[in-house]
Amino acid sequence: MKQSQLFSKSSKKLSEAEASKNAQFLIRGGFIDKSSAGVYTLLPMGLRVLEKINAIIREEINAIGGQELLMPTLIQKKYWEKAGRWDVDVIFKTSSSITKEDKQDFEYGLGWTHEEVITAIATRFINSYKDLPKSVYQIQTKFRAEARPQGGLLRGREFSMKDLYSFHESKKDLNEYYEKVIDAYHKIFKRLSLKALLTETGGGAFTTERTHEFQVLNPAGEDTVFYCSKCNFCQNQEIYDPKEHKNCNGQIESARAIEVGNVFRLGTKFSEAYSLNFLNKQGERKPVIMGSYGIGPTRVLGTIAEVFNDEYGLIWPDAVAPFNVHLIGLTGKNSEKIEKAAESLYEKLISLGIEVLYDNRDLSAGEKLNDADLIGIPNRVVISEKTLSKNKLEIKKRNEKGSKLVDEKELLAMLKK
Amino acid sequence: MKQSQLFSKSSKKLSEAEASKNAQFLIRGGFIDKSSAGVYTLLPMGLRVLEKINAIIREEINAIGGQELLMPTLIQKKYWEKAGRWDVDVIFKTSSSITKEDKQDFEYGLGWTHEEVITAIATRFINSYKDLPKSVYQIQTKFRAEARPQGGLLRGREFSMKDLYSFHESKKDLNEYYEKVIDAYHKIFKRLSLKALLTETGGGAFTTERTHEFQVLNPAGEDTVFYCSKCNFCQNQEIYDPKEHKNCNGQIESARAIEVGNVFRLGTKFSEAYSLNFLNKQGERKPVIMGSYGIGPTRVLGTIAEVFNDEYGLIWPDAVAPFNVHLIGLTGKNSEKIEKAAESLYEKLISLGIEVLYDNRDLSAGEKLNDADLIGIPNRVVISEKTLSKNKLEIKKRNEKGSKLVDEKELLAMLKK
Repeated sequence: MKQSQLFSKSSKKLSEAEASKNAQFLIRGGFIDKSSAGVYTLLPMGLRVLEKINAIIREEINAIGGQELLMPTLIQKKYWEKAGRWDVDVIFKTSSSITKEDKQDFEYGLGWTHEEVITAIATRFINSYKDLPKSVYQIQTKFRAEARPQGGLLRGREFSMKDLYSFHESKKDLNEYYEKVIDAYHKIFKRLSLKALLTETGGGAFTTERTHEFQVLNPAGEDTVFYCSKCNFCQNQEIYDPKEHKNCNGQIESARAIEVGNVFRLGTKFSEAYSLNFLNKQGERKPVIMGSYGIGPTRVLGTIAEVFNDEYGLIWPDAVAPFNVHLIGLTGKNSEKIEKAAESLYEKLISLGIEVLYDNRDLSAGEKLNDADLIGIPNRVVISEKTLSKNKLEIKKRNEKGSKLVDEKELLAMLKK
Repeated sequence: MKQSQLFSKSSKKLSEAEASKNAQFLIRGGFIDKSSAGVYTLLPMGLRVLEKINAIIREEINAIGGQELLMPTLIQKKYWEKAGRWDVDVIFKTSSSITKEDKQDFEYGLGWTHEEVITAIATRFINSYKDLPKSVYQIQTKFRAEARPQGGLLRGREFSMKDLYSFHESKKDLNEYYEKVIDAYHKIFKRLSLKALLTETGGGAFTTERTHEFQVLNPAGEDTVFYCSKCNFCQNQEIYDPKEHKNCNGQIESARAIEVGNVFRLGTKFSEAYSLNFLNKQGERKPVIMGSYGIGPTRVLGTIAEVFNDEYGLIWPDAVAPFNVHLIGLTGKNSEKIEKAAESLYEKLISLGIEVLYDNRDLSAGEKLNDADLIGIPNRVVISEKTLSKNKLEIKKRNEKGSKLVDEKELLAMLKK
């Protein structure tokens, strides 16, 4: 993509309405636009990052047998009422603009989670132990009427969610799948370069059993976790009990953390409310045992921006960077020669399947280099009079200090790694 | 995918609440689930089809320079009011579940179109003729409070939309892009196997100029078009004038049609409302000239289902079929041998990158073959005792009558075409 054609432009100006670091950098870099509190547009570069996050999530969830579908946002009152969730604080309710004869017909709760809908659908397809286990998921926009949306993409009123639901004939089978999902989540967060701690927490209204969250230590987080410096012990403050930290002489430390995922044993709460039953091998009718598992891709995007940055801007990990290379032609006296060389390298990199943002704009060297630091693409490649005179290119990794003069062959070898 | 593991199951039962052919077949085939009037879930097979439609749209829109982004659904009152669209019939309005201190803060109109939002965003990035032209699009869920949702996926309250917006410095430039979009739409509908007629229609409230729709002739359509049997003349009933059909001796015929796309010159209506101005080459401040262009992917999905079917079920065109091959093992006496052969072919086809639905269920031949007709995958491949005894396979195209006995090599050659 040529930067002169990119819809967004970077900006030096800090956004006054944004306290959070992730939103500041993402707005200034041209990744997102703030529409209202907790509601953002993903601009082309932001959507590129989000789609890379989504692709990683899809790969790992497909690998554990998840089948992707897409449920609606408009969910009728009768669905919510069955499980007692019509009058929760976070639900947005709709009405139609003008008074119509049947007002009720336009009354929906916007989907903020989809246990109700998926359980109702599952009654069409699950009748016997032969139909189990099953797992389905969606990556979808969710809506929550947060009183105080904050933290940029960390807590919004409109955000994306990967929600996975699983159906089992026995608790044992649920527990096995629960462990599989935990493994898949570890793989996902590792690929996303996020160090996410598997954290024990309470089950809220649903269960007295412990459930688990994935927490990324960061001062911008809303949660507090207590974790061991040596072993994998990590508990949410809500349930933390030092007596449970046994057989390890590591130190317990506490820190703020961002919840990027959670796994949950629903048991039979929803299957009982919706009469989702199956005939077991003995011919007995039993409620299906369910689990639900979430990751918020837009929150993950915000978390990555919050974690990977320095005073100059963002530092995208390779796996989710909007582009792999930021190619910059520093046009000086010999601008035609430099443009030609940059254009030719741009075409070559694209033909090799490398994603390139090519800064072909008529701006000063300082402006271009500052923009590159703000946008945070992993590899910055500069062609200038100086490099051209030596028949070389300058490459600088965004996450390293020094730059290197290399020839084209060396550059390609470095980018292919 | 093994059919025994597929989340959905086909059903012989007609849905009483559905009058439309597309919804009947899509529900019975396990492509969609009806949540409420005009609101559907896309089940895994339905989502596969939708994603293929989306991929074709993306390719052609990217090819004319469209940059994909994703705007929000929650749009504040102040946005809608600027262009006078807060009190339109089709808008869904939200409120929060419980009474909060600031009620207004939870009042949004759900996005049913995004001229308001994109124009507001564009003021951040478009200031000069150097920033023009630009075009951006999204594929997003839209919401319209239709009084009487009908026609299955043809008119819903919740549906997907590809909405493209373009920005120009002159009417001439807009008109050139308008023609480019028309060309791209012709390519898209051709790839989707839909014969879509470019149809002249009126400009509604926005413009006295003619605009264009793409109409697929079908009795389920809500529009009526008048078209020439010989030339490209086609007008929507709303503006039809026989005197405009000149220089052609073809017959004018009229028919019901489904609108699958539209292109629209917005002019300066929104840029003036939002002060989206640019400095032209002469240094004068001018409002940006805009166009907007829509295709409804879920409506396209419904249209394809409505057009391509017979009394037994759906007949997917290759480009959007959920799978390329429906492999069926007809297990009889020698079931182990047949299963082994089918399983081995399944693995082979997948390793060649062919998308296969493998019916490995323990059902009768009749049930399996009826299901295959209902689901409508283009190539049905049967392995049975009869075929195995000749070291052959039976292949039948869903859109042809006869079947053929071929060996594996011939099969692979046929599927690669």
